[in-house]
Amino acid sequence: MTSTTTTGLSRRHFLHALGVTGGAGAVLGAMETLGVVPAASAHTVAFQAPRDGDFSLQGRANRRHVVVLGAGVAGLAAAFELQKGGYRVTVLEAGDRPGGRNWTARRDSTSVETDGTRQTARFDRDQYMNMGPARIPQHHTTMQYCRELGVPLEVFANANASGYYFNQPSATAGGPLAGTPVRHRAAKADLFGHTSALLAKAVSQGSLDAELSAADKENLIGYLRSFGALTATDTYVGSGRAGYPRDDEPGGWFDRGTPLAPMDLGDLLAAGVGRNFSFEAGWDQAMMMFQPVGGMDAIPRALADAVRSVIRYGAPVSGIQNTPTGVTVTYTRDGATKTVDADYCVCTIPPQLMGGIASNFSAQTKADLAVPVPVSVGKVGQQYRRRFWETDEQIMGGITNTNMDNGTIWYPSSGYLGAKGVVVGSYNFGANADAYGALTPAERVARTVERGSLVHGAPYRDELETAFTVAWHKMPLQKGGWVGWPAGTQGGPETAYGRLTLPDGNTYFAGDHMSYVIAWQHGAFESARHTVTSLHTRALAT
Amino acid sequence: MTSTTTTGLSRRHFLHALGVTGGAGAVLGAMETLGVVPAASAHTVAFQAPRDGDFSLQGRANRRHVVVLGAGVAGLAAAFELQKGGYRVTVLEAGDRPGGRNWTARRDSTSVETDGTRQTARFDRDQYMNMGPARIPQHHTTMQYCRELGVPLEVFANANASGYYFNQPSATAGGPLAGTPVRHRAAKADLFGHTSALLAKAVSQGSLDAELSAADKENLIGYLRSFGALTATDTYVGSGRAGYPRDDEPGGWFDRGTPLAPMDLGDLLAAGVGRNFSFEAGWDQAMMMFQPVGGMDAIPRALADAVRSVIRYGAPVSGIQNTPTGVTVTYTRDGATKTVDADYCVCTIPPQLMGGIASNFSAQTKADLAVPVPVSVGKVGQQYRRRFWETDEQIMGGITNTNMDNGTIWYPSSGYLGAKGVVVGSYNFGANADAYGALTPAERVARTVERGSLVHGAPYRDELETAFTVAWHKMPLQKGGWVGWPAGTQGGPETAYGRLTLPDGNTYFAGDHMSYVIAWQHGAFESARHTVTSLHTRALAT
Repeated sequence: MTSTTTTGLSRRHFLHALGVTGGAGAVLGAMETLGVVPAASAHTVAFQAPRDGDFSLQGRANRRHVVVLGAGVAGLAAAFELQKGGYRVTVLEAGDRPGGRNWTARRDSTSVETDGTRQTARFDRDQYMNMGPARIPQHHTTMQYCRELGVPLEVFANANASGYYFNQPSATAGGPLAGTPVRHRAAKADLFGHTSALLAKAVSQGSLDAELSAADKENLIGYLRSFGALTATDTYVGSGRAGYPRDDEPGGWFDRGTPLAPMDLGDLLAAGVGRNFSFEAGWDQAMMMFQPVGGMDAIPRALADAVRSVIRYGAPVSGIQNTPTGVTVTYTRDGATKTVDADYCVCTIPPQLMGGIASNFSAQTKADLAVPVPVSVGKVGQQYRRRFWETDEQIMGGITNTNMDNGTIWYPSSGYLGAKGVVVGSYNFGANADAYGALTPAERVARTVERGSLVHGAPYRDELETAFTVAWHKMPLQKGGWVGWPAGTQGGPETAYGRLTLPDGNTYFAGDHMSYVIAWQHGAFESARHTVTSLHTRALAT
Repeated sequence: MTSTTTTGLSRRHFLHALGVTGGAGAVLGAMETLGVVPAASAHTVAFQAPRDGDFSLQGRANRRHVVVLGAGVAGLAAAFELQKGGYRVTVLEAGDRPGGRNWTARRDSTSVETDGTRQTARFDRDQYMNMGPARIPQHHTTMQYCRELGVPLEVFANANASGYYFNQPSATAGGPLAGTPVRHRAAKADLFGHTSALLAKAVSQGSLDAELSAADKENLIGYLRSFGALTATDTYVGSGRAGYPRDDEPGGWFDRGTPLAPMDLGDLLAAGVGRNFSFEAGWDQAMMMFQPVGGMDAIPRALADAVRSVIRYGAPVSGIQNTPTGVTVTYTRDGATKTVDADYCVCTIPPQLMGGIASNFSAQTKADLAVPVPVSVGKVGQQYRRRFWETDEQIMGGITNTNMDNGTIWYPSSGYLGAKGVVVGSYNFGANADAYGALTPAERVARTVERGSLVHGAPYRDELETAFTVAWHKMPLQKGGWVGWPAGTQGGPETAYGRLTLPDGNTYFAGDHMSYVIAWQHGAFESARHTVTSLHTRALAT
């Protein structure tokens, strides 16, 4: 039982029942009857893919042809859903594989950056790294496609109490705990303990009587004692929740274990160890999180397999021309310039690349496509011959947060107890990603190893076998990890974003940038679904 | 780099190096040299199993025979480690399988309780349920054995933001939120938000100036704004961290999503939704947690395979007699009374069963064995034909906490996106377990279904296919889920527990009850290791 209202449920069930027999065409009609269209409230009903009978139900035999630009998640999802309704779909993809930013690097994966920098991955055959999206929240639409397509999942370790918070030692900054890796569990236990004691004190001395009833106060003190591991006198003197030294953990016989001594509140606050506590509470980041077994690219590969239509790889688009009856897309392949004529176009090309494509879009559309700002994003994957983080430090997956330019360190969420593993030694954004991207791949790795060695010591350097990096803002087919909409440009129909939800002529725009869940596959799927619904509604009406 | 001291590390490295070439015999000698024995400080060095050369290193050719009573985790671990040193080991197990309380029920698993109640599991062949231990913390010694024995692991979902807190509606209790399943994420977001706002207010109005420096205050406010998702005026008005209604989540186009409205602080406190927040912070419970792929019994099965010595199943022990030179154990098998003579005995039989075994132990030993108090523990596993918690409620693994007598509800941590799954509909202790245990299995299931239906609605009843239950206090070979030591009886050498760390004659006592980590396999492993070290030290000296 979720918080969904009964009304919402019964409406959905009604539509779902219709959908089973009547397809999206019947559903769309029913939605009008129920008054749950227009699009602005389309989120109140579950997505209904077009169905094979929709055109005949509407008294039309005319199946349409859609050209989809880009075989990333949005493009593939749009193609997959459109073909359920009998559309003829042609997908044009500039690269040589499905997935776009959903890219899993394996042995012999290659990249060429915009400045000609070349890399080839030398990972062992059973090792890999997700260069783009790497985690899936349990409630994302991405999960529905994994279920539908049979993509097996395993847990992505997005929160691990044994991960560290680490501040780089520095002559001028870093705080009192700089140079000391602090386990997440210790930081939380001590900060929760100290702050619970402070609040209990304020409550007990009556400082918050204006806010709290007597019952509230009693209940609150009870909660704080439990949450903060406080003594009966509401003080915090440490807790086993903080953890134990490795050589004094609870065990057999006389090994009662001695918890780590609590850290000082002032030190904890100055060090800012609490800066990432809320990360794990995020709607999109809270456990449980998932990843496909064997690599995130299992999703686009499954989508590509499911799309029975033509996917033309190595086919960069150079022009999009709306025509009175459809659209003509120009692309090159094997050195030749070719065209595709279709009734509609779904364009999932990143907006920051659209300036390089000739079109007869309106000046407003062209201006709107130029609004979103690409974000620099980098990752460095490091294959180790020994999983020292597991054997030496008892870290089974999860993330270490640093205040260094490498950003976070991710321990692998698969291959537990195995021999080797790929650690993400850097996942960074903005200026840090620009700085790393400006280096050669070898220099990037040298820098992440230097940073990570401060946390993990010699094994972080000595056990390294090979590495592979990406600077998404230097990848020619992406030129950015994702985009951000400047303040005020993503909103209602009067904004650049809002205008791009409408087609320009016969061309629709889709992708995670056309969502409120940018940089997640969910955004790409949801945008594709809206686009398919919109296009199909129009196709049935005309 | 952990907080382990350099001294501790180098000492361990020295001993480890010795152990590689010299075995535990050499290590034990070196430990004396280093002054790191006696046993009370044995936790300061890593466990070193006996090695095949130990006896010859000591100038002795005399390998010894050890009879191990019980093929649970402690018994198997002791046998496994002893045979590394060349001991001849005989294991006697009353039941028909290895593992003891580590029991995975599968299709055709059977049980007969002390009152004759019989059950046969009717799960599908690919479904199972861990009736005993079900989760492994990443730092437990259990992990080391999984690595050594090649037991593949997967994540156990011990904390899921999408799980619920649920209070049963009642005319007299339950609180203002009774009857409403509250997602963990919503409870945390709102309680953290409200309490952060309260503490920020107390800090800002100077109520805690005696405790905090000006810098502390500034840092604390910054932390609270982040941790509590407060506004710039330090108030809490809700947050996306609480989650979204299923029909208004962030998505594509205009689906910005509207977070759930915050719940009232007084209601949250009265409902006690924070009662389980600290569970997930526990040393033994914080993520990441693990389980063997395919069932927890993979661990005892791997141990049993690795133990090359004889394991006699269906061999209940009726007598243990210390003799001047060893021990004679009497058991029955196939209706006949038999004996085993050995140099030493390691007894892992639960202490609450020792009263039924004739022995010539001292009166003190017998009295000490009667001290620990068994705990009633029950579980109910429910196979569903449809994973409605995943498809309808987006709960991928994890736990729902209730205030009802069924205790917690666990969603399966494997088979995600699959067709069927086994939910643990009840895991309870003490009086609640006694109440369930007094019912027939069908009545137990009816009760858990009634309780769980309040949380999950009709599917919890309608989609149920079959169920299997256990009342550990009614299992004849266990008579308890685990034991508790009454106050003051578990401590130094002068306590009942302390005395049992010493052998009675040639008989040693091992098991999770001989540890500070009772009810975990870690305690059994650690106790076995201490016992093996102690026995081996003595064997080499005599």
